[in-house]
Amino acid sequence: MELNRLEKQIEFIKEIDKLKYIERKTKLFNSDRRENDAEHSWHLSIMAIILEEHSNENIDILKVLKMLLIHDIVEIDAGDTFLFDTTKNHVNTIEEFVAAKRVFGILPKNQAENLIVIWKEFEEGKTNEAKFAKAMDRFQPVLQNQSNNGGSWFEFNINFENIIKKTKTIKLGSNTIWLYVEKTIKALYNE
Amino acid sequence: MELNRLEKQIEFIKEIDKLKYIERKTKLFNSDRRENDAEHSWHLSIMAIILEEHSNENIDILKVLKMLLIHDIVEIDAGDTFLFDTTKNHVNTIEEFVAAKRVFGILPKNQAENLIVIWKEFEEGKTNEAKFAKAMDRFQPVLQNQSNNGGSWFEFNINFENIIKKTKTIKLGSNTIWLYVEKTIKALYNE
Repeated sequence: MELNRLEKQIEFIKEIDKLKYIERKTKLFNSDRRENDAEHSWHLSIMAIILEEHSNENIDILKVLKMLLIHDIVEIDAGDTFLFDTTKNHVNTIEEFVAAKRVFGILPKNQAENLIVIWKEFEEGKTNEAKFAKAMDRFQPVLQNQSNNGGSWFEFNINFENIIKKTKTIKLGSNTIWLYVEKTIKALYNE
Repeated sequence: MELNRLEKQIEFIKEIDKLKYIERKTKLFNSDRRENDAEHSWHLSIMAIILEEHSNENIDILKVLKMLLIHDIVEIDAGDTFLFDTTKNHVNTIEEFVAAKRVFGILPKNQAENLIVIWKEFEEGKTNEAKFAKAMDRFQPVLQNQSNNGGSWFEFNINFENIIKKTKTIKLGSNTIWLYVEKTIKALYNE
């Protein structure tokens, strides 16, 4: 029984290795190399630990870390969708839900269910933890694109209003970080 | 004051991006591509969440995650040392300590001190959390090398006794995982 659980867990550990091949649109700092989802998830997790004090509300940081570590795992099947993609909805697609069921479903049942609940909570973005986790997910590309003179925003011709609209969810998690982000985007777009 | 803290934190976030360029000897699953430290740290963190039930002792999983997320950051300055490197000590080198002081030192003082304490606790490997975190760090390459028909062990001609000696620290964190690992290594080496 114990070994059976361990074997399922090992199968899951092997499966999620694929996240290291999923490329994002955004590039590393001062770089031309696109980031992959595993690196991205690691970076956001450390950001959450470091920036917790700027959260608008008290948060359970362990839950935030779980969210950030697993939030992109569905992209193993569903692929990365650019935040500014106009042909495809970014969140809660049926495709992503099917992917969550398949990938987390490799785990023992209680663990699969638990991680799907945490993933959904992140996607819905309603709890304090989800708001802060999403703020991290939006904040990191701001810093990367700032270091790359506009980065993926300029590369894909995303306009100022669109950037502000999409990054403003940061404010739900942290007013302090949002103030910094707004200033940064205005400077980049000469607004 | 608040902004001053945020600016230091952002500088740290940018600095640790460099971990994505530090290559390990071990390769991804069924792959010829070497893993980098950021991907590795992400993978170990999820492993800890999934495998916590196999820990010999009760552990504070949040502390384990902090350890795993930051454990390789010193390699930005000190570089990756192969576990079986015979010319260089793998842990607690002066070089790594100087690196920890510099990189974590970018953060506000209280955060820098806190993370250095956690990093040292991991390196010393004496607490239950450090033992379990180290078990994850040793277990992942076992799985990777298993998938790559011996992987970095065969590539660098590491013999059976040496592998057993170095991976046996897994037993300190988890007897269950160690049983699996011992069987896996014996099968790989036909012992």
